[in-house]
Amino acid sequence: MMRFVIVGGDAAGMSAASRFRRHASDSEVIVLEKSSDVSYSACGMPYNISDPARELDDLVVRPARVFREKQGIDLRTGHRVEQVDRERKTVSGHGPDAEPFTFSYDKLLLATGAAPVIPDMPGFDLDGVLALKSLEDGRRIKNYIRSNHVTRAVIVGMGYIALEMCEAFRTMDIDVAMVKPRPQLLPWMAPKLSGIVREELTNNGAILYDGYPITGIEKTRDGLLSVICGETRLEGHMVLVAIGVKPNSGLAVESGLVLGPQNAIAVDRQMLTSDEDIYAAGDCADAFHVVTGEKTWIPLALRANRAGWAVADHLAGRQVRLEGVAGTAVFKVFGLQVARTGLTVDEAADHGFDPVDVTIETRSRAHAHPGNTTIHVHMVGDRKSGRLLGAQMVGYEGVAHRINAVSVALHQKMSVASYSQCDLAYAPPFGPVWDPTLTAANQLLKKMS
Amino acid sequence: MMRFVIVGGDAAGMSAASRFRRHASDSEVIVLEKSSDVSYSACGMPYNISDPARELDDLVVRPARVFREKQGIDLRTGHRVEQVDRERKTVSGHGPDAEPFTFSYDKLLLATGAAPVIPDMPGFDLDGVLALKSLEDGRRIKNYIRSNHVTRAVIVGMGYIALEMCEAFRTMDIDVAMVKPRPQLLPWMAPKLSGIVREELTNNGAILYDGYPITGIEKTRDGLLSVICGETRLEGHMVLVAIGVKPNSGLAVESGLVLGPQNAIAVDRQMLTSDEDIYAAGDCADAFHVVTGEKTWIPLALRANRAGWAVADHLAGRQVRLEGVAGTAVFKVFGLQVARTGLTVDEAADHGFDPVDVTIETRSRAHAHPGNTTIHVHMVGDRKSGRLLGAQMVGYEGVAHRINAVSVALHQKMSVASYSQCDLAYAPPFGPVWDPTLTAANQLLKKMS
Repeated sequence: MMRFVIVGGDAAGMSAASRFRRHASDSEVIVLEKSSDVSYSACGMPYNISDPARELDDLVVRPARVFREKQGIDLRTGHRVEQVDRERKTVSGHGPDAEPFTFSYDKLLLATGAAPVIPDMPGFDLDGVLALKSLEDGRRIKNYIRSNHVTRAVIVGMGYIALEMCEAFRTMDIDVAMVKPRPQLLPWMAPKLSGIVREELTNNGAILYDGYPITGIEKTRDGLLSVICGETRLEGHMVLVAIGVKPNSGLAVESGLVLGPQNAIAVDRQMLTSDEDIYAAGDCADAFHVVTGEKTWIPLALRANRAGWAVADHLAGRQVRLEGVAGTAVFKVFGLQVARTGLTVDEAADHGFDPVDVTIETRSRAHAHPGNTTIHVHMVGDRKSGRLLGAQMVGYEGVAHRINAVSVALHQKMSVASYSQCDLAYAPPFGPVWDPTLTAANQLLKKMS
Repeated sequence: MMRFVIVGGDAAGMSAASRFRRHASDSEVIVLEKSSDVSYSACGMPYNISDPARELDDLVVRPARVFREKQGIDLRTGHRVEQVDRERKTVSGHGPDAEPFTFSYDKLLLATGAAPVIPDMPGFDLDGVLALKSLEDGRRIKNYIRSNHVTRAVIVGMGYIALEMCEAFRTMDIDVAMVKPRPQLLPWMAPKLSGIVREELTNNGAILYDGYPITGIEKTRDGLLSVICGETRLEGHMVLVAIGVKPNSGLAVESGLVLGPQNAIAVDRQMLTSDEDIYAAGDCADAFHVVTGEKTWIPLALRANRAGWAVADHLAGRQVRLEGVAGTAVFKVFGLQVARTGLTVDEAADHGFDPVDVTIETRSRAHAHPGNTTIHVHMVGDRKSGRLLGAQMVGYEGVAHRINAVSVALHQKMSVASYSQCDLAYAPPFGPVWDPTLTAANQLLKKMS
């Protein structure tokens, strides 16, 4: 009987475990998860935290006992794997009561996820300085807000999580100051579009300090936390650290596996690492980018689930070939929908393309239709090949799902000209005759020719 | 100087006129439009009619004088073309005061649109029996409702326009009975999905009589219109006839041009008819279907605009090749969004595919996210080639723009397997981790293998 050991019990790990048990019900599947939580919707945490009526545990998609009792998975929470011995094919570490364990494996999956980046500066270990990644982090933040009557918060960072948590704080009527060293909000975004996001944030009461170098956090005499940014001090009852995440690839590093971009674990299109008995999947692993064909590291929930399935399929002897990611992402900033897919102009230039870009403004509904709002689309093409390379979109409606059409086009290496010919949906309540992405493609074509 | 004559001044005609004037400002462009309206958003009429605060003329995108004064187009409204003489290269007819006219052309564009089908039965010519196609039709309906204190209406037909007008009537608190001979609502739709549309209609107070053969309309003694359906009589202050449209290809027929499906004017990928000096574009012309590669007739606003541009481009000596349509459509039925693209199972079988289909139910937002509603997706693939052939979707949010991703896939003749690998957007307020179309593709793949 084959023993499949999985390190990490979130999206990638549990997807692989469940699917492999379905493929091979006589197999032994052991999942070792360091926390007490498995299979939860991490991305839903900001929305849950802001709603006092909900428990964090609402976000658990499938409880541990279902995996154990219904699916026959040997799921062990509180088990922290500290070593992988590739020679002996064992993993070892410590269990919930600090008792040591060692398991041998026939096949191993590293699904260790990612961890928030915490700056190595004074005060980032103070009580009330919190980051959001695991469900336990979410509980900690929700409890902290509740117990400490938080009415002022400082967010260090201005990425997706920072922006979503800004909305969460404001929903709870908590004052928010956001701070980051680079003088740009969402630097990957076309300036026109990031300007709209900035406006939405400030209209909703957030105060932005971009271009403020941070040197530490200290506790003030009246018990507040004070983020030190040169001359400026930003004070709050709590500090959320959201400057990004890094892959949890420590086990892979120590066992000598090959790494990819940003120290993510390098995997091929079958999710195999440089060791033929070890897979990696989820936020700890890299991926091919469908536009560049090169390796990239973009932690994405869908990719994690898909990669978990791919591991199970490959292990069951099925043909597997994951083409990769387009870097499609969408997030909500108060009333705004913000979406992107593919390459930015800078990324395109870095990868040897000759990028041409356009930024257009159009409407979310047909001419003269009530409730019309503005949609901005930024689109990037390659002058040499004519290929569509990426798009970004911002608007109050009709953005979140529209980006998917461009994403499919990127998977297909479609030209801007071909994209501009696509038969996209039209009805007055849902958009103009020319879909916003088509208007962008039409304008981009003119600039490219 | 080249003279370009255009018959018909709506989407296709005015798109061609405007764009060609931009390409060749020294050219002579004459547009002959039989009505007094040009360039309006016909699809917006149901929403305008239901809003007493708005005028129908709000739907005019660009008034005639702008075309005349700013763009130098010789636009003649009230000019009905009655004959095309291909030998002499002239068009002739009668102007607003019944005066005859004849214009010679170097190149001609037929952009004569489509007309509502009116059954050849007694009573369909009665006062108060109205159809909706032109802006003038819209004015007539809006005035009729206003002047006749309409509180009960009968709609003959249950297609897009019928459904949109049903919503319009109900918005105005007008009782609605809908009737059609075939015992199916939206027969092209998967039964599960059309069942949801039916429920939405009846929940909003519409009464559906499908499977009721209609034999005529008569006036009752108390001045109501009575639609005769066998034993059943459906009475109302007005009757809307919305059983479909047919291409206005009379001029083409009389001048011996080749016709395509449903008597639409046959055009190639450059919009040329069987006469090398005559183009056709818009609802009067046929198109290639990107899935079957065969000719089809699907009147669509986007196609009309795009085809108008293509005519102008081709005439200006540019390279033009319109691949065709996927039959992508979206419409609103009260709170529901209904969308389709590509082939149905029956259409697929008719075109020699070996169709496999699946209908799935998923959610509009992430696990446990507030405001979650149901989305149903129906997807069709070809067992032989593995190709994705079409999709249909119904839901209360997140349907209208999601269909576009499938449409792009159809343009690219993508397989269901490849589509299932696409990196589509995810955030909890906007969808589940697996986009509904991906869940459908995953399930379809299982059935296909």
